[in-house]
Amino acid sequence: MQRVVNSSFILLVVALLVCSVYSVDLNEFLAQRERLLAEESSRILGGSVILNADEQLVNNVLMAAKTLEFDQSFSTLDFIPADHYFLAKPAMLQSEVFQFIQQMPKGAVLHIHDIAVTPLEFIINDASYRPNLYVCTPPQDPVFFQYASSAPANLLDCQWTLVADKREQEGPEQFDSWLRSKLSLFTLTPQETYPNINSVWTAFENTLIAGSGIITYAPVFTDYFYQGLQSFYDDNVQYIEIRTTLPQVYNLDGTLMDEVQVTQLYKDTFDRFKNDNPDFSGAKIIFAPLRRADSATMTKYVELASQLKAQFPDVVAGFDLVGQEDLGPPLKDFLSQLLAGAVDPDLHYFFHAGETNWHGTDMDENLIDAILLNTTRIGHGYAIAKHPSVMDLARSNGVPVEVCPISNQVLSLVADLRNHPAAMLFTNGFPLVISSDDPASWEAVALSSDFYMAFMGLAGKKADLRTLKQLAINSIMFSAMSTDEKNAAMAEWQKRWNSFILNKYNEYKTKHNQI
Amino acid sequence: MQRVVNSSFILLVVALLVCSVYSVDLNEFLAQRERLLAEESSRILGGSVILNADEQLVNNVLMAAKTLEFDQSFSTLDFIPADHYFLAKPAMLQSEVFQFIQQMPKGAVLHIHDIAVTPLEFIINDASYRPNLYVCTPPQDPVFFQYASSAPANLLDCQWTLVADKREQEGPEQFDSWLRSKLSLFTLTPQETYPNINSVWTAFENTLIAGSGIITYAPVFTDYFYQGLQSFYDDNVQYIEIRTTLPQVYNLDGTLMDEVQVTQLYKDTFDRFKNDNPDFSGAKIIFAPLRRADSATMTKYVELASQLKAQFPDVVAGFDLVGQEDLGPPLKDFLSQLLAGAVDPDLHYFFHAGETNWHGTDMDENLIDAILLNTTRIGHGYAIAKHPSVMDLARSNGVPVEVCPISNQVLSLVADLRNHPAAMLFTNGFPLVISSDDPASWEAVALSSDFYMAFMGLAGKKADLRTLKQLAINSIMFSAMSTDEKNAAMAEWQKRWNSFILNKYNEYKTKHNQI
Repeated sequence: MQRVVNSSFILLVVALLVCSVYSVDLNEFLAQRERLLAEESSRILGGSVILNADEQLVNNVLMAAKTLEFDQSFSTLDFIPADHYFLAKPAMLQSEVFQFIQQMPKGAVLHIHDIAVTPLEFIINDASYRPNLYVCTPPQDPVFFQYASSAPANLLDCQWTLVADKREQEGPEQFDSWLRSKLSLFTLTPQETYPNINSVWTAFENTLIAGSGIITYAPVFTDYFYQGLQSFYDDNVQYIEIRTTLPQVYNLDGTLMDEVQVTQLYKDTFDRFKNDNPDFSGAKIIFAPLRRADSATMTKYVELASQLKAQFPDVVAGFDLVGQEDLGPPLKDFLSQLLAGAVDPDLHYFFHAGETNWHGTDMDENLIDAILLNTTRIGHGYAIAKHPSVMDLARSNGVPVEVCPISNQVLSLVADLRNHPAAMLFTNGFPLVISSDDPASWEAVALSSDFYMAFMGLAGKKADLRTLKQLAINSIMFSAMSTDEKNAAMAEWQKRWNSFILNKYNEYKTKHNQI
Repeated sequence: MQRVVNSSFILLVVALLVCSVYSVDLNEFLAQRERLLAEESSRILGGSVILNADEQLVNNVLMAAKTLEFDQSFSTLDFIPADHYFLAKPAMLQSEVFQFIQQMPKGAVLHIHDIAVTPLEFIINDASYRPNLYVCTPPQDPVFFQYASSAPANLLDCQWTLVADKREQEGPEQFDSWLRSKLSLFTLTPQETYPNINSVWTAFENTLIAGSGIITYAPVFTDYFYQGLQSFYDDNVQYIEIRTTLPQVYNLDGTLMDEVQVTQLYKDTFDRFKNDNPDFSGAKIIFAPLRRADSATMTKYVELASQLKAQFPDVVAGFDLVGQEDLGPPLKDFLSQLLAGAVDPDLHYFFHAGETNWHGTDMDENLIDAILLNTTRIGHGYAIAKHPSVMDLARSNGVPVEVCPISNQVLSLVADLRNHPAAMLFTNGFPLVISSDDPASWEAVALSSDFYMAFMGLAGKKADLRTLKQLAINSIMFSAMSTDEKNAAMAEWQKRWNSFILNKYNEYKTKHNQI
């Protein structure tokens, strides 16, 4: 009996010992686990932001909605950022997270193009109803539009017809729906309609050409950009930098304005908008002509950029080049011209670079040239995650990438936004801003659609209000504003932010008290 | 006149001065550019490999083929790694780069699963023609097969029919084609057939269940794995580690073998193959049961792994868990059991972790647990690029990820392999090996298909023979072989490599002299 007790006792002691060894191990392990998770949480974009008590409460509300949406999507596999934007948009508009982001003061939008800045409703419901607008018929792709006091000389393949006549003939609803289809890439069958990157770019450029005939008519031009600013202002964006080719703006009699006059039009429009909305922090342009140019033209472009910068120092932010990057030519073809431009200390570069999936090609190396040319920011930088040395330089020089998630999806770089390489930039706290590139072309909601996709699809389930706050701060910090302008914009943003947090806080308290 | 000359002269001097300033700048810039490109080239996986003169010549031949294929793909937009493997395979088989990779000694394959290791031809043309094989009809998904001396008891929804009878009835060609369709995911309409990750996983698991009824019949089992080793050997792979659930292997009379007996079968098969092919470096198994288990079962698994490791120290490499990772349970549900297992210093872990697109979820955190549980390698690690602290730990501890590009594409994590996150691991020289996961399920060519996709789609246009050589070296270095085994395997690989380079060198010289 004694032996039995003893051996049972020994077994018990051994069992407890084993248990305690394991439980210590487990506790130690769990502590290590927490430390590692905390470390990763601190490395994410916004990881160093400290939220105050009110912000923490609002963050809890936000994260409850985000977690719910994430978990539901995980069950149903209907995850909005994993689907094509054209198909996912209705669900996005219903999302509580999206609505939160819409209301949030988001700071600035820094990467957006002239011909796709303003919602299509302005062109369809306003500009295209103005008198003297002609369309070249039968319409081909691209469709040409032009305002003129009398029908312009016919083109090779089509003749000019008054839009008013055509609209009456076809019925306004049908005509307007057709007009929208010529200005927008939207389709419910994106994969079939745009089977590859070149086909979607061709269609995209056709929408821009169609739009530009309407937009570059002087009276429309100023109203168009005024409405563009309005749409971002309404989306709680307070500052904007527009890349523009500085197209020749025309009058009804066919006379053309030069780049100086067009820059003045921008300035006048920006001033008018700011006058009407004193809490708007302003707007600037980046002169960004087509990259498909010869050396002599590039020399002229760079000289013109310097000249405009000198003439409109507060309006002109700098210089860039546009057009489907893959089709080139690459920046390295213009090194002499761009180095010559760099002699002007006031001319800043904002190069598109790395908007490609072709790693190791000449075009991909635009990232190398952009960073060595002291670019102030990198447009897209989709490929930067594959360039560790460019990343190192960009980080140490404080050069952010302008990430445009929906653009990259619609323009065929990536299908499921969870595979967007900027996800790695988020988790590594790399300097970046979110922008919307050409929201009108894919009917995105100003800046909020892209913010939503970045927050849900790129930054991961755990990214919270700290990340959103940092994105807003980044957008002002990395803008081309002067220090004084930045300070004023930051103060304005902080005011809006405090008010936003207070509103959200009160909303929650009211709801909570009612329940 | 004097004034004119003077001012012309001054203009000339200024022009020359400007020119020289610019040209110095340009030269300086080009030098910086070269340095940056060289730095990135040195950071890529294999960047520190120094090629000898013969290797350099072979590299030139390889890179000429790679560049040509890249440039043609860029023009046509038919880039093999951007397309679904099922559609791209015929073009891949024609690729000169692929053929080069096939001939190259690739070292080891470290991530591959038991039921999909051997080309389907063995099951279709050999095993399924053996007598006593029954199929449950009418066949549903999954289809059940079983060898038996007389028809087994019928299942609820189907009754057992001899395959021989069914084949005769339907005609062998039609039956074999049907059989292939039940063992393979192959289809020419992958997006329509498998609209999401769960549907493709269900179909995938059905192929595994269908195959396992045939494969786990004892006489077939040993032949099946012998043929599996043969297929990799023929693909110039010299060593293999097979993840296995250690299924109950059965005899014709229905008696079952236990895990010890099945491990012995593996050992016998490996020994037989090595005896027949003395230059084969060997094979090991990783015991990898289904992750969908309760705690008590997990305890038994871990204990069994320890026991098998003790009993077959040269055959059993360690322990892992398998099954669609997204559906869980996550590793953190089994921390007590896995920490208990870690007490055995001989039991190594080889956890699947991060085979997911759901960043920030519990399943995604398998990466955290795997690395803290001292995993020896990480299976897939698809999500690791989004975990900078896990990456830091893995790099400093020398823990590689086992990248399986085609698996990740077929199983719906990424469509275009240029967006595979391991592209970033390549350019950052992160420790990794390339593996093929379940080549039979998607009819891939042993290891070469995945090597090709990694080389063309992930590593970028400029990755060259240094990267391929490093991948082969990594596969031996990061294997579970003992130091002695590794030394022997490295010596064997070096011999094969030298001979491969010599052959390629002579091929080139012969061709060159003929022209």
